[in-house]
Amino acid sequence: VTTRRRQSTTRRDLVSNQILERAAALFAERGFANTSLQEVADALEISRPALYHYIRSKDDLLAALVHGITQQTAASLGEIAADGDLDPVQKLDRAIRDMVQRIAANPARFRLLVASEEMLPAPLAEEHREARRLALQHLSDVIQSGIDAGALRRVDASIAAFAILGMCNWVAQWYSADRKGAPAPERVADELAAIGIAGLSAEGGASASGDGVASALARLRDDIDDLERRLTRPRARARRSA
Amino acid sequence: VTTRRRQSTTRRDLVSNQILERAAALFAERGFANTSLQEVADALEISRPALYHYIRSKDDLLAALVHGITQQTAASLGEIAADGDLDPVQKLDRAIRDMVQRIAANPARFRLLVASEEMLPAPLAEEHREARRLALQHLSDVIQSGIDAGALRRVDASIAAFAILGMCNWVAQWYSADRKGAPAPERVADELAAIGIAGLSAEGGASASGDGVASALARLRDDIDDLERRLTRPRARARRSA
Repeated sequence: VTTRRRQSTTRRDLVSNQILERAAALFAERGFANTSLQEVADALEISRPALYHYIRSKDDLLAALVHGITQQTAASLGEIAADGDLDPVQKLDRAIRDMVQRIAANPARFRLLVASEEMLPAPLAEEHREARRLALQHLSDVIQSGIDAGALRRVDASIAAFAILGMCNWVAQWYSADRKGAPAPERVADELAAIGIAGLSAEGGASASGDGVASALARLRDDIDDLERRLTRPRARARRSA
Repeated sequence: VTTRRRQSTTRRDLVSNQILERAAALFAERGFANTSLQEVADALEISRPALYHYIRSKDDLLAALVHGITQQTAASLGEIAADGDLDPVQKLDRAIRDMVQRIAANPARFRLLVASEEMLPAPLAEEHREARRLALQHLSDVIQSGIDAGALRRVDASIAAFAILGMCNWVAQWYSADRKGAPAPERVADELAAIGIAGLSAEGGASASGDGVASALARLRDDIDDLERRLTRPRARARRSA
């Protein structure tokens, strides 16, 4: 019985997910304020009661966006930031992939949320702002701990967090898995994680800008220091790579 | 006379700029579809004719957004991409700074454009799409030429261009020069340019992920090759590939 109930929940979630995503696309396209749920039902070619089964009101839809996107992102970033098994760079990697996959799966919903952010009804607007603040805080903390550990460059952690958020959030504006020749979400996540990590990484970065012989020599010297550290550090590591 | 005319044009542009920015903020806040120009005039505490002097209709405002933001960005990126005095990394740097400064100067307008993108009237929507396509093309070209020159990593140039666009465009969603303690636009541009370039740079990046002795040696070897190239350029390049 448990299994059957879980299956049916999953199927209901799938349908609910599709309806939410298509409704969000329609609202974004026609304007949230001047599109009624009846028009959404007509456009999706489902009955009004069928639509009402998933969305009872337009405010309900906005609440679903805030709870399903902003708050989930904040919660997920919080878990990643607190994960004692990951170092800061691994956390950054995990955080970028998590955000990209969530957005790539529901770009229309994310676009509608961004577009209607300033029109959210009062209590929901507060929940949304608080979740955004938390998400930024978790990401800044991860970046700051990476800087403190020497793994990331000495950037402004808050501007850097906004840079990463922007790179990921913008996926909603250009990505559509349905478009012919579109890369898989995992491929987008791979590229953005690599770009984000390299962008903040302590290796390269700072010294990478110089293009004369002197800076090439400086990089060489850094590499030799780095190699020396690796060879003299806890013996297990050296043995493993030998 | 020329100077006086230029000054007065500049003053008119400044006022026009402020009115456009505040009108955009109001439209975004209250919803574009259900806010009238009269309500905007009331909220800005100016007369309707005074407002009409700058914005004759809501469609006019949308046209001003597309022409002043999307098309200007595309034109500016086109000039940077074609500038024979800059190498690909310098072009990328210039492009990021150009976008960040434009957006940081008018965040509300940029937010309204993003929010109303799917509701633009038909001919304007086409102009907007074409300018967006061009901007992406110019940025991808710059990145691809950097990859071909060996200055940037072998990333997917189009995904990388979207990453850079996202990082810059997201500035509209969080940056406000008026906020207490807000960094100067130049500071934001500096940080984002550094992150974007390091994120795509060939130095560090790809090899930076390995943390064993073998990868430290690989980095050393890369940097010795690099130093050799710098010392023997331009002839060494052909020999190296042989």
